[in-house]
Amino acid sequence: SEVKKIAVIAGDGIGPEVVAEAEKVLKATEEVFGYKFETEHALFGGIAIDEKGTPLPEETLEVCKRADAVLLGAVGGPKWDTNPKELRPETGLLGIRKALGLFSNLRPAVVFDCLKDASTLKPEVLEGTDLIVVRELTGGIYFGEKFRRPSEQGEEAVDTCAYNVAEVERIARQAFEIASKRRGKLASVDKANVLETSRLWREVVIRVSADYPNVELEHVLVDNCAMQLLRRPSSFDVIVTENMFGDILSDEAAMLTGSIGMLASASLGEGSYGLYEPVHGSAPDIAGQGLANPIATILSLALMFRLTFGYEDAAAAIEAAVAQVLDAGHRTSDIAVDKSKAISTSEMGDLIVAAI
Amino acid sequence: SEVKKIAVIAGDGIGPEVVAEAEKVLKATEEVFGYKFETEHALFGGIAIDEKGTPLPEETLEVCKRADAVLLGAVGGPKWDTNPKELRPETGLLGIRKALGLFSNLRPAVVFDCLKDASTLKPEVLEGTDLIVVRELTGGIYFGEKFRRPSEQGEEAVDTCAYNVAEVERIARQAFEIASKRRGKLASVDKANVLETSRLWREVVIRVSADYPNVELEHVLVDNCAMQLLRRPSSFDVIVTENMFGDILSDEAAMLTGSIGMLASASLGEGSYGLYEPVHGSAPDIAGQGLANPIATILSLALMFRLTFGYEDAAAAIEAAVAQVLDAGHRTSDIAVDKSKAISTSEMGDLIVAAI
Ligand SMILES: CC(C)[C@H](C(=O)O)[C@@H](O)C(=O)O
Ligand SMILES: CC(C)[C@H](C(=O)O)[C@@H](O)C(=O)O
Repeated sequence: SEVKKIAVIAGDGIGPEVVAEAEKVLKATEEVFGYKFETEHALFGGIAIDEKGTPLPEETLEVCKRADAVLLGAVGGPKWDTNPKELRPETGLLGIRKALGLFSNLRPAVVFDCLKDASTLKPEVLEGTDLIVVRELTGGIYFGEKFRRPSEQGEEAVDTCAYNVAEVERIARQAFEIASKRRGKLASVDKANVLETSRLWREVVIRVSADYPNVELEHVLVDNCAMQLLRRPSSFDVIVTENMFGDILSDEAAMLTGSIGMLASASLGEGSYGLYEPVHGSAPDIAGQGLANPIATILSLALMFRLTFGYEDAAAAIEAAVAQVLDAGHRTSDIAVDKSKAISTSEMGDLIVAAI
Repeated sequence: SEVKKIAVIAGDGIGPEVVAEAEKVLKATEEVFGYKFETEHALFGGIAIDEKGTPLPEETLEVCKRADAVLLGAVGGPKWDTNPKELRPETGLLGIRKALGLFSNLRPAVVFDCLKDASTLKPEVLEGTDLIVVRELTGGIYFGEKFRRPSEQGEEAVDTCAYNVAEVERIARQAFEIASKRRGKLASVDKANVLETSRLWREVVIRVSADYPNVELEHVLVDNCAMQLLRRPSSFDVIVTENMFGDILSDEAAMLTGSIGMLASASLGEGSYGLYEPVHGSAPDIAGQGLANPIATILSLALMFRLTFGYEDAAAAIEAAVAQVLDAGHRTSDIAVDKSKAISTSEMGDLIVAAI
């Protein structure tokens, strides 16, 4: 079969360690399923600031653009936190999203059986929670005009939040598509009682809903959604919302599952192109010690196989292998009850490879 | 002592019922403590739309302005939800905040012993949770310029978020004051890695912190805060944040206590003026049936005594009376384990009055 090109961005902190394990898994699926991949590594985030003087070097963007998909570890760390804006890893993150047109961020929040007790929620509340947050990723207040100006009350800072019909329509359509392939329920989250962008959002979502008569649509105000996620997490199927609300709600949703160290995410553009990364951060405190859990990154690779390449067999095999290794009781230290029995990052990767 | 004027706004749904009980408590404290109050009722919200054609009639604003404090029940309901913007209860709410200069919204989130099990969080996680969200209430994206304009990608909607130094400074100062009288910990929540308003926010908060060396300040990004509230709620003391983030986080914080039906809030301006209201909404589904729990409104009155009038004795007496009635096992149906033993709204009010 055709050779698929994957841009691999290890990034900072535990990024390189977890990405290395995902690359082992990539190799294993080539052997088992006969798929062919070509990987190309690129610098991004803090390490790119250190080595190239910018979080998103032009050549990294080139590598990503000539690839079919991107696998990203994690970026950032205290070392760059006080840098000026242009020299911060986050700036690279916003830049890559915009440059690659990744307008949609999918964050499944599921509960792993072996981590049920890790949640701060009661097990009976969590029972059956399996939702996905579809977050608009290249619009809204993140990318609107920002400036300062003098005012009579001291300096004034301004951020602008804007959405046009086309931007809302494409993300809404994608959320309806996803919902129609799941349990057929879509919660559109906005603040239509206050914001003009939310009123436009709601109008467009309602218009798009006409094409999806089998998807049950509800509109939830963002403050209410923050509450309902806590009160009835299992009642949500797909949640679609704008960039800033999605940032907050997807983190809340991920945390309530207790499984944040195991969650994968996909950022998609037009067509099948996508960037895949674990939900967790770069965890600089445990970097380089073989303590990191590579499962979220490995599951992000599985998501890439499913969503970008349509390699459902390989995706399912990876997910089954992860489940099998966990069922056999193997744990990295972040998820081990008995830390003394914890295995290392590479041992976990090897076990998953063996199970494929 | 001096006669204090209280504007009483019953509002919609269960508003009139719960406010009626708070007025009984008001009378009782007059008798017991010798304070003198004069109340003046005013129309606001849905009922004002129905009777006066506007959610915030000019005369209501006059009543509020000549009072020393405002007691508000609740506003809104499905009846007005599809009205145009100028004829919606929320518009009245935003209008009254701005007109009365109520720039600071205090929302204590505490766990009531009798409601510990009502939370969806595990009791051991919730243990010791006692925090207060200080939300900026008259700035940010709520009050910025809003408009639509044509674009090549269909109509575009715009909301503007602005903050000036003076606006941030007054709310920061108030949060530091509150923290210095509590456990001395302040979490300032922003999105300084993305927003210009958040960068200004952080600069000003840091500057103000120099005047409060005994308050320990941490900066928390809003997405991380949504997670940490779930992971370690008891570690927060005071949280200060801008209007939109505060809307979301204060609802999340209230819900995780499991006590949302019992929580009071205060919206303060310059000086001692304040508007006091329960955190819960107008609950139109149970209105007029004597099922509503008046405790959140009664505790809002206690907050008024403490914060606006400095009547600490009366405030403490009300809080003690509420605790005593709950300890004796009396419950309205929302908090009753055995619903058949639930007492009515007015029975609850009478018991609290008797206990004062
Ligand atoms: C690092 C930050 C800019 C980013 C965001 O807010 O989008 C992060 O929180 C995320 O959710 O990917
Ligand atoms: C009704 C709405 C406009 C209001 C707000 O967002 O401020 C409400 O959610 C609140 O928190 O008081």
